[in-house]
Amino acid sequence: MRDAGAVTALVRDLQPDAVIHFAEQRSAPFSMIDLPHASMTQVNNLVGTLNLLFALRDHAPQAHLIKLGTMGEYGTPNIDIEEGFIVIKHNGREDRLPFPMQPGSFYHLSKLHDSHNIQFACRIWGLRATDLHQGVVYGNQTDEVAMHPGLATRFDYDAIWGTVLNRFCVQAALGLPLTIYGKGGQTRGFLDIRDTVACVRLALENPAAEGEYRVFNQFTEQFSVKALAEKVREGRAAHGLQTSIVHLPNPRVEREEHYYNAKHQKLLDLGLQPHYLGETLIESVIESVERHASRVDPVELEQPNVDWRRGGTAGWGKTERAAPMPSEPRPVVVLSSSRKPRQPSSASTSTRLAQRR
Amino acid sequence: MRDAGAVTALVRDLQPDAVIHFAEQRSAPFSMIDLPHASMTQVNNLVGTLNLLFALRDHAPQAHLIKLGTMGEYGTPNIDIEEGFIVIKHNGREDRLPFPMQPGSFYHLSKLHDSHNIQFACRIWGLRATDLHQGVVYGNQTDEVAMHPGLATRFDYDAIWGTVLNRFCVQAALGLPLTIYGKGGQTRGFLDIRDTVACVRLALENPAAEGEYRVFNQFTEQFSVKALAEKVREGRAAHGLQTSIVHLPNPRVEREEHYYNAKHQKLLDLGLQPHYLGETLIESVIESVERHASRVDPVELEQPNVDWRRGGTAGWGKTERAAPMPSEPRPVVVLSSSRKPRQPSSASTSTRLAQRR
Repeated sequence: MRDAGAVTALVRDLQPDAVIHFAEQRSAPFSMIDLPHASMTQVNNLVGTLNLLFALRDHAPQAHLIKLGTMGEYGTPNIDIEEGFIVIKHNGREDRLPFPMQPGSFYHLSKLHDSHNIQFACRIWGLRATDLHQGVVYGNQTDEVAMHPGLATRFDYDAIWGTVLNRFCVQAALGLPLTIYGKGGQTRGFLDIRDTVACVRLALENPAAEGEYRVFNQFTEQFSVKALAEKVREGRAAHGLQTSIVHLPNPRVEREEHYYNAKHQKLLDLGLQPHYLGETLIESVIESVERHASRVDPVELEQPNVDWRRGGTAGWGKTERAAPMPSEPRPVVVLSSSRKPRQPSSASTSTRLAQRR
Repeated sequence: MRDAGAVTALVRDLQPDAVIHFAEQRSAPFSMIDLPHASMTQVNNLVGTLNLLFALRDHAPQAHLIKLGTMGEYGTPNIDIEEGFIVIKHNGREDRLPFPMQPGSFYHLSKLHDSHNIQFACRIWGLRATDLHQGVVYGNQTDEVAMHPGLATRFDYDAIWGTVLNRFCVQAALGLPLTIYGKGGQTRGFLDIRDTVACVRLALENPAAEGEYRVFNQFTEQFSVKALAEKVREGRAAHGLQTSIVHLPNPRVEREEHYYNAKHQKLLDLGLQPHYLGETLIESVIESVERHASRVDPVELEQPNVDWRRGGTAGWGKTERAAPMPSEPRPVVVLSSSRKPRQPSSASTSTRLAQRR
């Protein structure tokens, strides 16, 4: 995406009716590791999207851009969150204006920068775009993916690339405590991966008008982190299994108790049939983790390794801070792959966790 | 600013009490020339500011960052523009939120991206920052600069680096028609360069609190472009000189008639004593242009050379579009320097202008 010539040639040669742009650095903790990672995240995401916008202007101005944004652009305002725009009455006048945004990481900020750039391109060049402000995705199966094990997607559970429900499911499968960052009142929008795919299809089948920049809030339910943990615990209890919940110091800077009511009507109006989060889904994820339990690295589950205030806490983080900044960010070691298979010992892991707390 | 190591070393070694950050690509038309210029503007401004934010976090977290933003971040909403934040009542609840922004160029967008990044850094790291949302500056003299001709600052009147009142003054000095883009109802905040300096000093002497991100709208009066042109014409008429006003097709995409009422109270509350735009100032700028009239390039005054829809209209713009994108933006030829002195012939220039219209 950062190779302008390649992006231009692709759009020129393909003459697409629509472009679905998911090709961005996607992790908030990654962007908070240090300056090179923050800078790389913002430059990568922003330049890639700019390259695409200019290519569309010059070679496929009628194409419909479907761009993956995030619910995290909004932050946690004390008013209802609308879908992209809000009518504001002020001193006797009113206008429909972009919803005020308060993103919570350099990654989320990069998505907001993109949103503003895309909105501008629609206004001045007449491009058409749908910005999918997506919530946290859970689940690891769609009908298509389920057809063959070779189609299995990544399942990230670590603190950099993973998401919270994945972490809870892995912890539950291994008999470890579920780890909540801070009080756990942090509330976000969530959706099933099958609904993600359905939403993209709905946007595709119902394109934005010429010059229109529109935002769909793409999630189906909102949960607090604490409520999610309790859902997992209840699911296990139904099978006679005990699960404990622990609270870790929050590595992020965020409100831990707050109002949250985000609208998500537009995709429903287009016909979305939500898959709500139920015990069946949670159980199926946990079962799938159990089948691969030997490949889980329990160290990844213990403590978050990026702190919003101080950055990456791993060894490379410290050396990078002391040394002159490299021009390119160093690769992050992600341990949630199968590179380091080892048998987790839930006894010793629990001991280590207990010592740390 | 883009050399993270240099910025870090500077902040670490200097241990500043305050940092005044003006070091950004500053031209909206420059950012609209083509993709490389848009991309360079946003990456340059964003990365420079990120480098500074991390350096402040690590080496001078108590320093007060004074950052040059722009009134252009707001765009032209149909409600009063507040200073950075607005209290929004919505569905029975209320919150003080960032004012919704609608910037009008990739340059103005870069300033908005900066604003969001700075605001986030204040929130999570406790930095203190003042974002000066500055209007259009006019005038070319401060008491200090007036002390010696060698201290004279740049005076840009071309379509890339110049500002509208400068262009009108040069046109008036040469006896050329004043060129308004579109209807001329575009209204913006303006301020005298002496007030710019005073505002920075006031921000410096009254620093933001720890963790505070504040916005000062830094201008003293608002004018439409048409009203500005009429002010210049009236000033000339008082000396018995006739000045004509012409309207050119607007190269920008912007509202040409709109509501505009932007607050600018905070700097007044700190003690700003505005220099309002009067005939004396306009006359002094015109006189100063007349002294250097032989160095004016009248071609620069005729037509804007960057179009918001199509980009740069000069020859290099066309070749750049056809060829593969270079990795670095090519330099823009700025003719408002003294490199090409030639005697303007107001007769032939007027003819050319007339033919073009």
